[in-house]
Amino acid sequence: MKFEDFEEKTISRKDIFKGHVINVKFDRVALPGNRGEAPRELVFHNGAVAVLAITANNKIVLVRQFRKALEKVIYEIPAGKLEIGENADPQAAMLRELEEETGLTSENVSKIAEFYTAPGFSNEIIHLYQAKELVRVPNPRPQDADEILVRYEVTLDEAKALIKSGDIADAKTILAIQYWELGV
Amino acid sequence: MKFEDFEEKTISRKDIFKGHVINVKFDRVALPGNRGEAPRELVFHNGAVAVLAITANNKIVLVRQFRKALEKVIYEIPAGKLEIGENADPQAAMLRELEEETGLTSENVSKIAEFYTAPGFSNEIIHLYQAKELVRVPNPRPQDADEILVRYEVTLDEAKALIKSGDIADAKTILAIQYWELGV
Repeated sequence: MKFEDFEEKTISRKDIFKGHVINVKFDRVALPGNRGEAPRELVFHNGAVAVLAITANNKIVLVRQFRKALEKVIYEIPAGKLEIGENADPQAAMLRELEEETGLTSENVSKIAEFYTAPGFSNEIIHLYQAKELVRVPNPRPQDADEILVRYEVTLDEAKALIKSGDIADAKTILAIQYWELGV
Repeated sequence: MKFEDFEEKTISRKDIFKGHVINVKFDRVALPGNRGEAPRELVFHNGAVAVLAITANNKIVLVRQFRKALEKVIYEIPAGKLEIGENADPQAAMLRELEEETGLTSENVSKIAEFYTAPGFSNEIIHLYQAKELVRVPNPRPQDADEILVRYEVTLDEAKALIKSGDIADAKTILAIQYWELGV
């Protein structure tokens, strides 16, 4: 099947919300092959970066923070959204987030993967990196004023136990820990 | 640190959009420790199911479909959102989606994990299952009228190559394939 056999052409698009993190739109689309019309609820996002940061003694750096959408404090790998203009250089954005969230940096970084987090309704893409040989930044850029983060370092076995217990329940974090276990 | 040291209490909540897939809300929150206020843009979702379905000849079942948020056709594992009332039995919902999207079912299913897809702005949770010993349903429930899906079956090596090439770029799908590789 060709792209045309799948494509849903936009009939109309309504702007619902323009925020700092997301833009919400509501589309009417034409289904391919004269199957009629359907509504599509869409959340547009500028993309994000995340990092599998491994310390010299082979631990992964995690952060705990409150997530309002969940009303919970959860474990995640260091991550943050791309600011306007950063799309051209997600690696620089990743290093900024790593420094702000953990006070660490690295000159040994590589890209692991890019993936969509919730393609059923959102275009958010995460650029996932690995960072090794972490070093402490003498005067790190401060955390965002509206973020409270606590840093943790855990071994692979501890990380796997936290996944098993459900304490780590964030897709990008599980995915990164699996990459680590698979020996990237 | 205790939960109270992280918690962002709601000062006000505005309903922005009520849809069939998502509800969008805009909060003003009080940051802990008298750090002031902050806005929070939130996308509420009823949760979803997904399945790592492995055939008798050890291939993973993938589906290709158009995703309007991306304007792309992408590979994913079979998945779908929980309908209202299905939260109590996500496994039944997973079997429904598997049948609708692939015409297959299984009596050998187990839960692999639950994870949040985009906790920075959404509460969407995915219940991920594994299904083995797949059997064809004689008269399967039809696909949703507004979904066009094409089924593929690929080996682990083929799946890994599709991740490497970027053709598979969906978080839940990469996560499921890595679970498979790790030998769940």
